[in-house]
Amino acid sequence: MGQQNQRAKAKLHSINAALESGGLQEVKRTINIGLAPAEVAHLIESSPPKVRKMLWELVETENEGEILQHLSDEISADFLNEMSTEQLVDLTSELDTDDVVDLLQQLPEKQSNDVLRGMDSENRSRLEAVLCYPEDSAGGLMNTDTVTVRADVTLDVVLRYLRRHRSLPEMTDNLLVINRNNEFIGILPINKLLVSDLNQTVREVMTTDTQIIHASLDEEDVAKIFERHDLVSAPVIDNHGKLIGRITIDDVVDVIRDTADHSMMSMAGLDEEEDTFAPAFKTGRRRAVWLGINLITAFIASAVIGLFSDTIERLVALAVLMPIVASMGGIAGSQVLTLVIRGQALGHISSGNIGWLLNRELAVGFFNGLLWAAVIGGITLFWFNDALLAGIIAAAIIINLVVAVLSGAALPIILKRQSIDPALAGGVILTTITDVVGFFSFLGLASILYL
Amino acid sequence: MGQQNQRAKAKLHSINAALESGGLQEVKRTINIGLAPAEVAHLIESSPPKVRKMLWELVETENEGEILQHLSDEISADFLNEMSTEQLVDLTSELDTDDVVDLLQQLPEKQSNDVLRGMDSENRSRLEAVLCYPEDSAGGLMNTDTVTVRADVTLDVVLRYLRRHRSLPEMTDNLLVINRNNEFIGILPINKLLVSDLNQTVREVMTTDTQIIHASLDEEDVAKIFERHDLVSAPVIDNHGKLIGRITIDDVVDVIRDTADHSMMSMAGLDEEEDTFAPAFKTGRRRAVWLGINLITAFIASAVIGLFSDTIERLVALAVLMPIVASMGGIAGSQVLTLVIRGQALGHISSGNIGWLLNRELAVGFFNGLLWAAVIGGITLFWFNDALLAGIIAAAIIINLVVAVLSGAALPIILKRQSIDPALAGGVILTTITDVVGFFSFLGLASILYL
Repeated sequence: MGQQNQRAKAKLHSINAALESGGLQEVKRTINIGLAPAEVAHLIESSPPKVRKMLWELVETENEGEILQHLSDEISADFLNEMSTEQLVDLTSELDTDDVVDLLQQLPEKQSNDVLRGMDSENRSRLEAVLCYPEDSAGGLMNTDTVTVRADVTLDVVLRYLRRHRSLPEMTDNLLVINRNNEFIGILPINKLLVSDLNQTVREVMTTDTQIIHASLDEEDVAKIFERHDLVSAPVIDNHGKLIGRITIDDVVDVIRDTADHSMMSMAGLDEEEDTFAPAFKTGRRRAVWLGINLITAFIASAVIGLFSDTIERLVALAVLMPIVASMGGIAGSQVLTLVIRGQALGHISSGNIGWLLNRELAVGFFNGLLWAAVIGGITLFWFNDALLAGIIAAAIIINLVVAVLSGAALPIILKRQSIDPALAGGVILTTITDVVGFFSFLGLASILYL
Repeated sequence: MGQQNQRAKAKLHSINAALESGGLQEVKRTINIGLAPAEVAHLIESSPPKVRKMLWELVETENEGEILQHLSDEISADFLNEMSTEQLVDLTSELDTDDVVDLLQQLPEKQSNDVLRGMDSENRSRLEAVLCYPEDSAGGLMNTDTVTVRADVTLDVVLRYLRRHRSLPEMTDNLLVINRNNEFIGILPINKLLVSDLNQTVREVMTTDTQIIHASLDEEDVAKIFERHDLVSAPVIDNHGKLIGRITIDDVVDVIRDTADHSMMSMAGLDEEEDTFAPAFKTGRRRAVWLGINLITAFIASAVIGLFSDTIERLVALAVLMPIVASMGGIAGSQVLTLVIRGQALGHISSGNIGWLLNRELAVGFFNGLLWAAVIGGITLFWFNDALLAGIIAAAIIINLVVAVLSGAALPIILKRQSIDPALAGGVILTTITDVVGFFSFLGLASILYL
C-alpha cells in the first residue's frame, strides 16, 4: 500500500494538526529529522504564506540548503533574499556545485557576487567555471563531480582506485575516460566493470559510441537526448573536447516537468514557476497584466460588432446568436493550437511536414465546419423560424471554423520563427482572429443579405 | 555543439531528402543501422501517415520491437494491429518483461491472449504475473529483472557473483537484498559496494531505510516518489512483502511527461497520446465530439441573451459590449483553473489549505474586478457617453470576475472529489458559468435600470 507514502502523508497530516494545536517542538523535530528534505519542501510549497514562514523558521540551518534545492525558484528566492551573505556562504559550503549554481541564480547579481567573494578560492573558481554558462544550457545544469580514469590502466587498478574513495558521487553509473589532456574519450559503465575480466584495460572495455553533451546545448535538447537514449548521466564537454562536468537524470527530470508545465501555464498567462499559494496582491498584480492584454482583444471584437450595430438593431436575433459563431471558432482553433504547440515541444514539427499539417487542418476545418454548420443552422431554423438567418449562420460557421483551424496550426509555427513564445502569445492572437472573423462574417453577411 | 544531436538532425534531414528522391536503400540502411531505435521512432512520429507506413516497412524485423517501445501508444497500436500472432510472439521474445507488457496492453484482449498462448511457458508465467496489475500502477510499470543477494554473504562473494554474469540489467544501481522467503529486506547500492571493505557482510553495509513501492501504487504517486527522492530505481513488493520486481527511472520519466501533457491536452479536449499527424478523418471525428459538447455551452449562453432581447433592441450598445463581460470572466477564471489543476497535479492542494485558497481568490477577484471595472467603465463612458451604461458594465465586471475566480478555484476540487477529470470537464463548466453569469448580470442590470 506504498507504506512509505502513507507514512509521509500521515506525518504531513500530524504536522498540520500540531501546528494548529501549537505543538511547535513536535513539528520542529518532524521537519528536521522525520521527513526527507524533498518532503519538507513539498510541505512548504503546499502551505499558505504565514504557515510557510513559520515552517521555514523551524528548519535547522544545516538542513536549509537541501530543502532549498527542492523548492520552486519563486519560493526559494523569497527565503534567500532574507539571508545575509555570511549565511549564504555557509549554506553553499555543504552543497554540490550544480545546486550552488541554482541557488546563486535566484539571487540579485550584487548579492551573488558577494557570496562568491565570501567563499574560499577553490570553491569560487569551480563555481565561476560553471556560472559562465547560461542558466538554461547544459553548462548551467551540470555538476563537476566526475570520476575519471585513464584508458591504459587495467580494470583491477580501477577497482582499487574506487575503493580508496570514501564515497562515490550520486548516480555514478559510468566512469569517464579521459586522456592526459583532460579530453573526453569514452565511458566505462560500472555495470560493465563489474562483469568484465579484471586483467583487461579500460580501453578494451570502454564505450566510445556514446551521447556527449556540449556545454552550450539548450536544456530542452539535453532532456530530449536523455529521454531518447534512456540515460542516467552524460558527460559534458567544452569547445575543445575537454571534459568539464556531467549531467544527471534528476536535473533533467526537473527540466522535463518545467517544459511540460510551461506550455500549459503560458497558455493561461502564468509562469511555470507560479506559486500556487502566492499572497493575493502578488498574484493579483500579475494576473491583472494578463487581463489587460486580453481586454484589448475583447475591445477589438466589440469594435467589429459596433460596425454593425444598425443591423443588430433591426434583427436582435443576431445579438443572440453571434457568440456561438465566435466561440465555436475559438474552441476549434484552441484545439489545434494546443496540438501544434505540444508537437513543437516534442520536436515533431519541421519544414518538411508543415505543408501536410496545414492541408489536413483545411480538411478537418471543412469537415467540422459543414457538420456543425448544418446542426447550428438547423437549430436556428427551429428556434427563429428564419431560413435566411439559418443560412447566414451556417456560412459564418464554416468560414470561422476553417479560419480558426488554419490559424491554430500556422500561428505557433510563425511565432516560433519570430522567436516569440507560441504558448504565451498564440492564444491571445488566435482569440482575436476567431472573434473578429466570426463577428465580421456573421454580421457582415447579415448586413448584406438583410439590406 | 551537441555533435551527436547535429548528426542525428543531419541524418533525419538526409532521410527526408532520400525519401523524396526515391533512395530507399539508403533510407533502409540509415533506419536500421545509422539511427538509434528512439531516433527512428521520433522520425516515424514526425511523419505524415503515408510516409510513416513506408518507413515502417523499411524497418527490419529484428529492430521492430525496440522501435515500437518508443512510439506513442496510438501509433504503435496501428502497427501492432497489422501483425499476425506469430509475428507478435517473435517480436516479444527479444524484449524485457515491462516492454512486452506495454505492447500487449495496446492489443485487443483476444489478440493479447493469443500472443500469450504462443509463448513458451516460462515467458508466459512471468508475463502473467505482471499483467495482473492495472496498466497505470506500479505493477504495470515494473520489470522483473532484479539482481538479488542475501544479507549474510560477504561483499567479496557478492562481487564474484556479479562477475559470473555476462551482463547486468540496465540501470542496476542497487542490488536488492532478500531473505530466504524472497521477502525484501533492503538495498545494497553498487556505489557503496565499490568503496566498502570487502570483508564486511551485506547486512553491515546495506540500507533498510529506503523507498519501497507497493505494486498497487498509482503510477503518478510512483513518479512523485522518484522525483522527491531522486531515485534511479526502486524495488516493488506485493501484499506479503515479497520482492516481485523493480521500476527504473526511464519508465517514470514517461509517466511524468504524460501526466504533464495530460492536463494541457485535456483542457483542449485532446488525449495526451494524440498523434500530431493523425489522418484528417480520424482526428476530425474526435474533435467534432469536443465541439459538440462546447456547442451546448454556447447555446445555453445564447438562451440567456435571448431572455433579454427586448432590452437589447432598445439599447444596441448592450450587444456591442456584452462579449467583454463574458470574456473577461472566462480569461480570469481559466487562469485560476489552470493554476489549481497544476497545483493538484503537484499534490499541493489538500483539505487544510483549500479555505485559504478560496479566500485569496475572493481578494484577487475583488482587486482585479474593481480595477478593470474602472477601466472598462471609463472606456464605455468615453465611447458611448452614457454614465448609467458605464456603471452597469462596471458592476457586471466585478460580479463576473469574482464569480469566475471562485469557480476557477473551486471547480477542480469539486470535480476531483466526484472522480471527474478536472482538466477535461473544468474548462467547459467554467465557460458555461462565466458566460451565463456575465450575460445575466450585465443584461439583467440593464433591463432593470433602463426600464
